[in-house]
Amino acid sequence: MLLRLATWKQVEDYLTIRTDVLVPLGSTEQHGPNGLLGTDHLTAEEIAREVGDDHGVLVAPTLAYGMSEHHLAFPGTLSLRPMTLVAVLRDVALSFHRHGFTRVFFVNGHGGNVSTARAAFSGIHADCSVRCRLVSWYELPEVVKAKDELFGVREGNHATPGEISVTMKFYPHAIDAVGPCEVVPGMATPIYSAEDFRRRYPDGRMNSDPSLASTGAGERLFAAACEGVARELKAFVEEA
Amino acid sequence: MLLRLATWKQVEDYLTIRTDVLVPLGSTEQHGPNGLLGTDHLTAEEIAREVGDDHGVLVAPTLAYGMSEHHLAFPGTLSLRPMTLVAVLRDVALSFHRHGFTRVFFVNGHGGNVSTARAAFSGIHADCSVRCRLVSWYELPEVVKAKDELFGVREGNHATPGEISVTMKFYPHAIDAVGPCEVVPGMATPIYSAEDFRRRYPDGRMNSDPSLASTGAGERLFAAACEGVARELKAFVEEA
Amino acid sequence: MLLRLATWKQVEDYLTIRTDVLVPLGSTEQHGPNGLLGTDHLTAEEIAREVGDDHGVLVAPTLAYGMSEHHLAFPGTLSLRPMTLVAVLRDVALSFHRHGFTRVFFVNGHGGNVSTARAAFSGIHADCSVRCRLVSWYELPEVVKAKDELFGVREGNHATPGEISVTMKFYPHAIDAVGPCEVVPGMATPIYSAEDFRRRYPDGRMNSDPSLASTGAGERLFAAACEGVARELKAFVEEA
Amino acid sequence: MLLRLATWKQVEDYLTIRTDVLVPLGSTEQHGPNGLLGTDHLTAEEIAREVGDDHGVLVAPTLAYGMSEHHLAFPGTLSLRPMTLVAVLRDVALSFHRHGFTRVFFVNGHGGNVSTARAAFSGIHADCSVRCRLVSWYELPEVVKAKDELFGVREGNHATPGEISVTMKFYPHAIDAVGPCEVVPGMATPIYSAEDFRRRYPDGRMNSDPSLASTGAGERLFAAACEGVARELKAFVEEA
Amino acid sequence: MLLRLATWKQVEDYLTIRTDVLVPLGSTEQHGPNGLLGTDHLTAEEIAREVGDDHGVLVAPTLAYGMSEHHLAFPGTLSLRPMTLVAVLRDVALSFHRHGFTRVFFVNGHGGNVSTARAAFSGIHADCSVRCRLVSWYELPEVVKAKDELFGVREGNHATPGEISVTMKFYPHAIDAVGPCEVVPGMATPIYSAEDFRRRYPDGRMNSDPSLASTGAGERLFAAACEGVARELKAFVEEA
Amino acid sequence: MLLRLATWKQVEDYLTIRTDVLVPLGSTEQHGPNGLLGTDHLTAEEIAREVGDDHGVLVAPTLAYGMSEHHLAFPGTLSLRPMTLVAVLRDVALSFHRHGFTRVFFVNGHGGNVSTARAAFSGIHADCSVRCRLVSWYELPEVVKAKDELFGVREGNHATPGEISVTMKFYPHAIDAVGPCEVVPGMATPIYSAEDFRRRYPDGRMNSDPSLASTGAGERLFAAACEGVARELKAFVEEA
Repeated sequence: MLLRLATWKQVEDYLTIRTDVLVPLGSTEQHGPNGLLGTDHLTAEEIAREVGDDHGVLVAPTLAYGMSEHHLAFPGTLSLRPMTLVAVLRDVALSFHRHGFTRVFFVNGHGGNVSTARAAFSGIHADCSVRCRLVSWYELPEVVKAKDELFGVREGNHATPGEISVTMKFYPHAIDAVGPCEVVPGMATPIYSAEDFRRRYPDGRMNSDPSLASTGAGERLFAAACEGVARELKAFVEEA
Repeated sequence: MLLRLATWKQVEDYLTIRTDVLVPLGSTEQHGPNGLLGTDHLTAEEIAREVGDDHGVLVAPTLAYGMSEHHLAFPGTLSLRPMTLVAVLRDVALSFHRHGFTRVFFVNGHGGNVSTARAAFSGIHADCSVRCRLVSWYELPEVVKAKDELFGVREGNHATPGEISVTMKFYPHAIDAVGPCEVVPGMATPIYSAEDFRRRYPDGRMNSDPSLASTGAGERLFAAACEGVARELKAFVEEA
Repeated sequence: MLLRLATWKQVEDYLTIRTDVLVPLGSTEQHGPNGLLGTDHLTAEEIAREVGDDHGVLVAPTLAYGMSEHHLAFPGTLSLRPMTLVAVLRDVALSFHRHGFTRVFFVNGHGGNVSTARAAFSGIHADCSVRCRLVSWYELPEVVKAKDELFGVREGNHATPGEISVTMKFYPHAIDAVGPCEVVPGMATPIYSAEDFRRRYPDGRMNSDPSLASTGAGERLFAAACEGVARELKAFVEEA
Repeated sequence: MLLRLATWKQVEDYLTIRTDVLVPLGSTEQHGPNGLLGTDHLTAEEIAREVGDDHGVLVAPTLAYGMSEHHLAFPGTLSLRPMTLVAVLRDVALSFHRHGFTRVFFVNGHGGNVSTARAAFSGIHADCSVRCRLVSWYELPEVVKAKDELFGVREGNHATPGEISVTMKFYPHAIDAVGPCEVVPGMATPIYSAEDFRRRYPDGRMNSDPSLASTGAGERLFAAACEGVARELKAFVEEA
Repeated sequence: MLLRLATWKQVEDYLTIRTDVLVPLGSTEQHGPNGLLGTDHLTAEEIAREVGDDHGVLVAPTLAYGMSEHHLAFPGTLSLRPMTLVAVLRDVALSFHRHGFTRVFFVNGHGGNVSTARAAFSGIHADCSVRCRLVSWYELPEVVKAKDELFGVREGNHATPGEISVTMKFYPHAIDAVGPCEVVPGMATPIYSAEDFRRRYPDGRMNSDPSLASTGAGERLFAAACEGVARELKAFVEEA
Repeated sequence: MLLRLATWKQVEDYLTIRTDVLVPLGSTEQHGPNGLLGTDHLTAEEIAREVGDDHGVLVAPTLAYGMSEHHLAFPGTLSLRPMTLVAVLRDVALSFHRHGFTRVFFVNGHGGNVSTARAAFSGIHADCSVRCRLVSWYELPEVVKAKDELFGVREGNHATPGEISVTMKFYPHAIDAVGPCEVVPGMATPIYSAEDFRRRYPDGRMNSDPSLASTGAGERLFAAACEGVARELKAFVEEA
């Protein structure tokens, strides 16, 4: 059930049955030569929606803007500063808390959000009893396994064939074909300023080969992600 | 063009042609007995998308969470505190500014955002040259005229047949029928705390009769809103 | 009764009788070729004082500094950033709340304060039961009617003959005569940066003709403003 | 020259001659059985005005609200939290800096403001070249000498005959007579919470005997304060 | 070289040779039945000092207070809220940046700091060119290997024999002996409120057996940590 | 007892006996040609430790970073902005309050912290019942007397022989000899920006002659400081 398509009375009824909620969290940031600016929030949105539908869990509106300061040297990136994202997550969690929700599960599509979200959670948990959890779909074991089999080291670290494949499943016409991309495997270099990022990665990719993306791969990764999120949500809800 | 379905290179190209952008801004809050929690952001989203398509203007991801503190006594309302929304709008505007955008036009669907957004704009305009504008679609003259003709005083002030009609056009199956609702015309009482709001308006409506909503009315209001937004945007862009 | 000329025991006694208070809110900002920098707070101060005297209402010290970022390109303008004004209004309202006041009525003399004050009120109302109201004296119906009759379109939007007339009533020697000023009627252009404002309005006026100001007009507008504020205050106090 | 009674062009002219300004800073807080809530800002206001008149220095509008958290257990006290006062002082100083002022001299009437103001100045001086100075009139050597001769240990620490005498000079009818007050000389006890303050000092005085206040004493102290402020301002302006 | 034992001229000289600096970062929080409240900052301090001595790197004063909200239900824990720690790290990094340092390497001893520090770094990297890096000594591969060999699953997650061993090397008399502690291996449960933490872990340990700590183990782990930090620092400095 | 070398159970036991705590507060900032960057926190740390040992009082970890914005033009100075220090002191005080401490006594070694700390205390005392006190050891009467006898006017205002003598007692090998330094007695000039400070005081001293520092003087001053702090702490604890 999408919260945005529900009435307040339906939410009131829902709360008599269960008190958890899914919140898709992503970003709006460059994703290389052919990846969509919305990749991170589109993938989180679709995965949360599917899990919500399959398991009868309420899904909140997508948080489409994330912490993307390091991508701001590429046009189209829209970033919340870390303290702003902390405030947004806090207000959302406290709103849920006020209504009687006890578990807020963020389905995350963007690595850059993770530390900021965890800092936010520390403040939320210090001040009220609602419990927040963030799971990055691309780090779930079933997704990692599938990515390894599909792309190996050519998955890379940003603007990867894996995430582009998932968006391709939902927006096939929005993704342009690209030629094979050079990949320099190895540990990704650390991230500092936006200018430094663009200097290191002139087309926005980090060691990834988006030419490998396909709708078929997207199907497989999406299924794996939904399976993993559902399992993690179940564990979260059952936690003492 | 939806920014979330574009690549950074497409935005780079767009900026060589025009430097304005549409940003849908709404809320997630109770909308009476049958109105959707997402009413305010769904309407803004659809109107911005249509104007963007018709006029070749870039449309940013929807800001679905707004300032709805006074609706928090109804389950499902998710509110950003005023200072949080100020920070969000600032970060978004400064991101656009960094890329060379000069005009950020917020298509607003929620009255509770207006003052906070204007306070944010004062700070943004003090610090950089990007220009921000907010237009609430339901206050455009062509929309007001149509609402008057369609609903008269039964339009009311919150959870109105007008806004519900527009969501009905796009999500007809999500809107339940309701019986005729009592309407006490006259100036809306002021808004204080969330508890006070619920005491005054136990089912969430403010002097509105959502039973009058219809897909046909939604078509007409949507067309009027798109016409008005397009005109306002044109004036904004042409402003010296 | 002016709070600044009362003792704490007198306020304690006052609270056994009534729990509302008037707070004059203005700005310190350029007001064209002959208008006083204090125009907005001087007018609010005098109106609040008169209403307080006539109706036995406590009047707090004048908030003489407002949100005037857009006037900072003119020497003498002193502006609080929007977030600072929000904090000031919050602290003042919470101080009153602590003592048992239930209604804080801001008599406002400056349009630039309105959105910021409303954003502040949203936060205050979310956190405590005190009720805040802001009324801009120059928008009261009796004042608008008098201004229309006195000045028509030559009233303009900033540094207007109306507000200058009211200051002239109280500080006749402080106002220099000016020659007739050119007026370009029509909707005021929007306000962005301070530099942009000065470029558009080199002498600080917005489509107004301050040469029309007179002590007589000031008498009439002042009386109308006091009448309107008294009526609005009565309604505020009687509100359920 | 009072800034609030000047035009922006007069301030522009002033800046070609001198670049210092006086800002009266006080509080609105209980001042014992017969002292006025406005004592601290009324005294600062009158002293600044006199020095401004005598020496041709611009005087900004009075900052009538100060940091008075510890007096909030007495009705009528209106306090800015320390961080709010820091923001106010910063915005005011930066406004002056923008216009070309180089010296901002705060004439202070309230001990509770001192630390917060100095914390604010550290931030201002870190960020721009304007210089801020705060002088508390009641600590000037000529004032201290006069208070010692007039009241000795019966001056006390809060709601003192000295400050009440100065307000009596300007508002003689606002001050009620009080009988002799018990005084327990010795170091004032430290200040913690507002509740603790009221417990220790049930009528608001701190070891002072306001019954000694007189208009004559007010004349003498006012003259001493003006002399001291003028001297300190001269030194401030001449400082390399 | 310890910065606190250097003069400003020595730092000026140092900057002509190298521009990196080590900053020990820890916490003050409960560490189980016999672990020291300072464990996390004491270990970081000693490791940074040793690497500084061995490699001629400047070592800043220890940041002994960290983000420990979840340990506040145990007496003696002193925690900075996440936003406070963000501000501290920012101010420290910007101070170094001002002097010409280009690399700030935080030797971290507390897991609870990691997300908050990374959020802080995102803001710092967005605003200036200094580069920040955080390395948690207990996660270095040589340390992990040694802990596995020494303690296996009895190392646990908090108040571990590993970290206690390192403090024992430096403060042998401060550590009391404890009897063998029950260990329930398996993934650590997530962390929410301080009260929840204490309920789950009544003596403060998380699945660890501090009775295994020894000075000998401390020697080995300390050496491994210093080796790892030195290697990471070298890589950081040499990074393009 | 040093808190960092205690367990949470020892603190729990301590709280059954007494509820006060000492917190050393200093800075990391230039101290002239031969003074240590850590002078202010090293002295506070040693004095607090000695008093803690002698009187059985718990001593918290040293706050080694203070408000030193005005020293930032000298390499090695590390400064917290005033608002950051306010947040740190607040979090520390509230942590103690949560555990049941009622008195937090800051042993201060840096004049630049005083106003900011007092502003912080005003906020803390407004929000909870814990009592904070700050004592600057170098202003204690017995210390002032000893400094006068030892150094007279050559003590000066910053990087003084007094404070350097105390560090010399503990770190004799860290202090280089310097030749006699020119001293211009008289009131210290006020402090504005860091650049202005360095222009006025090119080697960092303010009218002091650090060549007079000696271990013997350090012994005497340290003893006087410990005596004074112990007396002030006793009075603080016994205060009603």
